[in-house]
Amino acid sequence: MTSPTVSVPTPATVVDVEVLERNIRSVHEHLAGLGVRVRPHVKTHKSLEIARRQLAAGAAGLTVATVGEAEVFAEVCSDLFIAYPLWPDDSQLASLARLSEGARVAVGTDSEEAVHHLAKGLDRRVELMIEVDSGHHRSGCSPEQVARVARAAGDHGLTVRGVFTFPGHSYAPGEGGRAAREEADALRQAAELLRAELHLDRVEVSGGSTPSTPHTRPGVITETRPGVYVFNDAQQWELGTVPSDQIALTVHARVVSVRPGSVVLDSGSKVLGADRAAYATGFGRLLDHPEARIVQLSEHHAVVAVPPTIQLHHGDRVRVVPNHVCNAVNLVDQLIPVAGGRQLPPWPVDARGRNR
Amino acid sequence: MTSPTVSVPTPATVVDVEVLERNIRSVHEHLAGLGVRVRPHVKTHKSLEIARRQLAAGAAGLTVATVGEAEVFAEVCSDLFIAYPLWPDDSQLASLARLSEGARVAVGTDSEEAVHHLAKGLDRRVELMIEVDSGHHRSGCSPEQVARVARAAGDHGLTVRGVFTFPGHSYAPGEGGRAAREEADALRQAAELLRAELHLDRVEVSGGSTPSTPHTRPGVITETRPGVYVFNDAQQWELGTVPSDQIALTVHARVVSVRPGSVVLDSGSKVLGADRAAYATGFGRLLDHPEARIVQLSEHHAVVAVPPTIQLHHGDRVRVVPNHVCNAVNLVDQLIPVAGGRQLPPWPVDARGRNR
Repeated sequence: MTSPTVSVPTPATVVDVEVLERNIRSVHEHLAGLGVRVRPHVKTHKSLEIARRQLAAGAAGLTVATVGEAEVFAEVCSDLFIAYPLWPDDSQLASLARLSEGARVAVGTDSEEAVHHLAKGLDRRVELMIEVDSGHHRSGCSPEQVARVARAAGDHGLTVRGVFTFPGHSYAPGEGGRAAREEADALRQAAELLRAELHLDRVEVSGGSTPSTPHTRPGVITETRPGVYVFNDAQQWELGTVPSDQIALTVHARVVSVRPGSVVLDSGSKVLGADRAAYATGFGRLLDHPEARIVQLSEHHAVVAVPPTIQLHHGDRVRVVPNHVCNAVNLVDQLIPVAGGRQLPPWPVDARGRNR
Repeated sequence: MTSPTVSVPTPATVVDVEVLERNIRSVHEHLAGLGVRVRPHVKTHKSLEIARRQLAAGAAGLTVATVGEAEVFAEVCSDLFIAYPLWPDDSQLASLARLSEGARVAVGTDSEEAVHHLAKGLDRRVELMIEVDSGHHRSGCSPEQVARVARAAGDHGLTVRGVFTFPGHSYAPGEGGRAAREEADALRQAAELLRAELHLDRVEVSGGSTPSTPHTRPGVITETRPGVYVFNDAQQWELGTVPSDQIALTVHARVVSVRPGSVVLDSGSKVLGADRAAYATGFGRLLDHPEARIVQLSEHHAVVAVPPTIQLHHGDRVRVVPNHVCNAVNLVDQLIPVAGGRQLPPWPVDARGRNR
């Protein structure tokens, strides 16, 4: 574990490299044991340095959320999946064509309308993955609609590589197992319809989220796209996905104000992010004081309720665990890696702000 | 109003310059009429371009949240107040000394402990403002403690300029007036104790927040520090501070996925921010469709519930009003200004990410 006494200027977003590497290794090994390839979602860390480590640990390619992220990660990987129902404009279409010069590229789609739109300008080297809603009710068509979307793609001479889903309903206490089951059911049905419609021997079947990863169902899914597992965060801690010793990223902060029963830290929503899921017990946790809770969060103030057993004084350093690490990382230009109690040269957040 | 047909690549954070200028003018005129100076909080926009406009419209100085923001805004203003209970480290102390070469600088403090700490290294040109809690219960001492903090400062040869508070409890429906009354009461008491303790003729009395600005009490407060008023946001719209035609910043987004009763936009929490106050009716609003609500927000997806009266199709452009504009601005490197229906050269978010 990083010593909280590594005295970086606060607030600072610090990565415990040993925990990070252990997380990558253990999740990749677990999935390899199930015969499932891992295509990590790099929106979590947006860092070439960390992507290189995931690829070295056997990742079969990378998942990104935007064309702009794909442009960044093409530097280290030639197999990129933009897992998003793209409705590309001309500049995004041009970028996808450029990316296809050097990489195998796939994009998401979830409707016949989107396929018609894509058909007008998509480089034919770019393949499609049809998104299915497995219970999260965000984007994605129903499994039954997959045949229609696939037919539209076939009619336009577009290549369909497979089907995918994001089982985001795994983000609720105790729901990881059910979400993994529903993910497998939806994907199995979608994959069968796709195979039949386009007479395909083999289709990619892509799922995955960090809370459902321990429940991954072998035999259906060919690849999985977890993102948060590299760092983990207060959400994963509270969902029970991992214990706190698997949390690799914390924001180092200092106490700037003290009153009975609470302290104020110099880490607000502009470094932690403002996420607070319905099940969250606060706006973030302290890694070394599991009983404490951030009960009020402003842009530069985190008010922490501290029980009498915890003594915190002006100037004290603490390690804050953000609720949702993906949004916390996107707020800073660099991560401070620490290994063996020593601070290493910073890692840039290469794809920070790449929202399109 | 910006036409939603200005076809910037999405998602993009767009400023309607005419609404911005009208907001600045009307709030500054209202406060001038009350005999209250305005020292705008620039953490909202982090933009030199907008700070210049506030100064041209009579701002008496600028408020910032961090030493890093002060470094940026020293380029356009020589009167800077860091309205935060600083517990500076050596590099922050060195920066404050450098800033004092060219600017009048004040910092916040709220305890005798912090004053003892500041006394060890603070450049004596930097003045103190004592923070008082007027009901928001974040940082700030009680008005009764002001005399003790002031005495500690006097003993150390530090100059106390005045007292300040942030009436953040104005951020609740119908509470702007009560928060302004409590702000005035706390500041009046604190200012009297400060005057008596240090035998001062004149002390600065600084308050203000955007929701309490319409209720500002003349005769007590000498300066006020609103921030959000330049842009406004969904919070101010829902609090009733302003109608929607005073909203100057929107995120232009496009529909990427459609299902009965809802659409998905390409603007998620990585461009809107994840803020959702207890009183908020969603994760953001659509400026041109007041009945619509963002009911689910992921990093790159905003799921909008749309009533049958609203027709939105794949590829349609909409203007999204973020819940909390300060956090939305901090996510992008530039703002796209639009005036007279025309897009102007971008304004950099000069102080983005300046968290310390």
